[in-house]
Amino acid sequence: MKVSILGHGIVGKGVWEMLRSNQGYEIRNVLVKKGEKTASFMTESFETVLEDDSDLVIECMGGIDPAFEFTSKCLEAGKSIISSNKALVAAHGIDLMNIARRNGKAFLFSAACGGAIPILQNLCLARRTDEILWAGGILNGTTNYILDSMDRRGMSFEDALAEAKALGYAEFDPTADISGLDTLRKIMLISMVAYDVLPNSDYNIEGIQNVSALDFEVAKELGCTIRLVGKCGLAESGRLYAYVQPVLCDMDSAYSGIRSNINLARYEGKNSGLMSFMGQGAGRYPTASAILRDVTSVADGQKQMLTEKCLVGFPYNNSKECERNYFIRLDASTFASQIGSIPVKKVICEKGGSVFAITEAVTVKAMHDLAAELRRHGAKLFFAEKKED
Amino acid sequence: MKVSILGHGIVGKGVWEMLRSNQGYEIRNVLVKKGEKTASFMTESFETVLEDDSDLVIECMGGIDPAFEFTSKCLEAGKSIISSNKALVAAHGIDLMNIARRNGKAFLFSAACGGAIPILQNLCLARRTDEILWAGGILNGTTNYILDSMDRRGMSFEDALAEAKALGYAEFDPTADISGLDTLRKIMLISMVAYDVLPNSDYNIEGIQNVSALDFEVAKELGCTIRLVGKCGLAESGRLYAYVQPVLCDMDSAYSGIRSNINLARYEGKNSGLMSFMGQGAGRYPTASAILRDVTSVADGQKQMLTEKCLVGFPYNNSKECERNYFIRLDASTFASQIGSIPVKKVICEKGGSVFAITEAVTVKAMHDLAAELRRHGAKLFFAEKKED
Repeated sequence: MKVSILGHGIVGKGVWEMLRSNQGYEIRNVLVKKGEKTASFMTESFETVLEDDSDLVIECMGGIDPAFEFTSKCLEAGKSIISSNKALVAAHGIDLMNIARRNGKAFLFSAACGGAIPILQNLCLARRTDEILWAGGILNGTTNYILDSMDRRGMSFEDALAEAKALGYAEFDPTADISGLDTLRKIMLISMVAYDVLPNSDYNIEGIQNVSALDFEVAKELGCTIRLVGKCGLAESGRLYAYVQPVLCDMDSAYSGIRSNINLARYEGKNSGLMSFMGQGAGRYPTASAILRDVTSVADGQKQMLTEKCLVGFPYNNSKECERNYFIRLDASTFASQIGSIPVKKVICEKGGSVFAITEAVTVKAMHDLAAELRRHGAKLFFAEKKED
Repeated sequence: MKVSILGHGIVGKGVWEMLRSNQGYEIRNVLVKKGEKTASFMTESFETVLEDDSDLVIECMGGIDPAFEFTSKCLEAGKSIISSNKALVAAHGIDLMNIARRNGKAFLFSAACGGAIPILQNLCLARRTDEILWAGGILNGTTNYILDSMDRRGMSFEDALAEAKALGYAEFDPTADISGLDTLRKIMLISMVAYDVLPNSDYNIEGIQNVSALDFEVAKELGCTIRLVGKCGLAESGRLYAYVQPVLCDMDSAYSGIRSNINLARYEGKNSGLMSFMGQGAGRYPTASAILRDVTSVADGQKQMLTEKCLVGFPYNNSKECERNYFIRLDASTFASQIGSIPVKKVICEKGGSVFAITEAVTVKAMHDLAAELRRHGAKLFFAEKKED
């Protein structure tokens, strides 16, 4: 197979190395940024790639612009596309699937969710004969590294983030990781593959920007730790729910066992039961290994991971399936003045000027709305779903 | 697709139910045992299946005879085969692959290893572009249920086994589970898929028949528990190693987190890193869900999980890659008289007339040979690999 690659950064270079050492693949062109051409196999001109005789183009540029323009032009020109770019697929996955179908070409994106973990391709296969009740997990290595470091090594948020950056886990601008947006994009991809729905607004998202050392102190007293989890599934109504939020989990739960920058992707099939996949969620070779599995799948004749039914939809986080008890930390003065609006089940303790409590079961939407309302009035608040399993 | 099913037991009935509720599949015949035909879709005659117009036959009979005769005749008659029968595939997988290739038909067997867990198909894909350094895990739900019950609920081996039988996890004759043979067969399948080698003799295998409540008591004092693990991989020489044995693992290892009858299948890819898959390793619907994924793969055009290079080979458990420290329990009198032949690194304690110790690093083969030799002289011995990670 003749292959060209868009991008020669962390992932692109890994793909290039792996393809070179695999027989059966000929690399045509590697697109690099202006001024970064340092070898004859590189080109700074996208037109060179567009006009070469490659059958397959692997996009590892990141970002939406010009990745969308380049990938859609390649598909229109009769080249298949494999992408590791979650921002691109979350924004334009349905468009690219439609262009690919129109041109009879492949469009796969395993590496855009879960790094080396084959969650998307497995969901893709399983959903055709099983009912996927829900799917999600720990899908961002940077935030997991920070939370695990705060928990097991007693680090502050700032120190843990600085270390994650130094180790190359966190981007220079880690906002998308910390805010939960990166996890949300992966949930979008999972939802598209498992449910034919891209939940692109009205979702509930809470990252780890509000977690503190004190939260881990109290969590530990409860025999728990904290993880950032994304999830989507089908409510009884048949509508989709999708959200991202911190979770307070028992030390013997599968979530707590996920250390460092490892990812845990799970789904529950009506027939298969709970399936869990753990592995490297990012990094040069793990991500490149997922891209090469897709290359093999294209060689085997697979064309799409999305069905033609895939559409934009609106998640419904206010259903019975989305009722959770929450662990909350709230500054003592807000707690005292707003006690009437907070569905407290049990106060755990008062510590460092904050009250820690467990709420009654409320929907995800109700909790996120309440948090937004309290913060609008200046409250200092952290909340995490209290997992019961 | 037109499908017939051989067998209507635990798995066969699950497959029948799932296929009936999936559009796109027409069930032709279901072969049942003599005297068990209770509905018109059933037949007691294999010839009826052989002569029907099914494209695909799903074998869920178990056992080797007549399963091998029936599946090879179906392939010769131009029908594809999906099997959940690990004994059959371990004994005749290479034969069936050859017959299938000769006739241009498919032969898949995902459900024969790991139940619902898609370990074989993922290895099948990953090995084509990555180097699989080793593969294996906790692959038998019955023994894991027994070990977990002894550990967490303080049950005796006999009571835990009786409960596993009552819950339908253990067979009426659980010898193949307890002895490690069932795990070994799954390792054989993994090795065939990942390495093109069926290790069919000279392997080292130790089950859980010698584990006692006392072993768990001492393991707990060391902050550990005990699991039964199978593993295969490539030694530096390029030769395959393969074995099954109990493992003493720290409470925060992934193995210890595997509870009840859950399975954990893992592999380490040179590029992907460590990949772990957890899920139901047995049971009607989990196993049927794996068969239905294979049905979908056949519909997509997949023909084989084994390459034509797959051959019988001999594992090599005496290599550097197979050096382990072992946790051993030995009756005090044998320990005293045989001390010269046992590579003791450290004595842990003496308890209930037995000595507990950790050995120096020795190869798997050396430890299994030593155990056989000591038992030949009447020693009461339990041993488990001491995991360092």
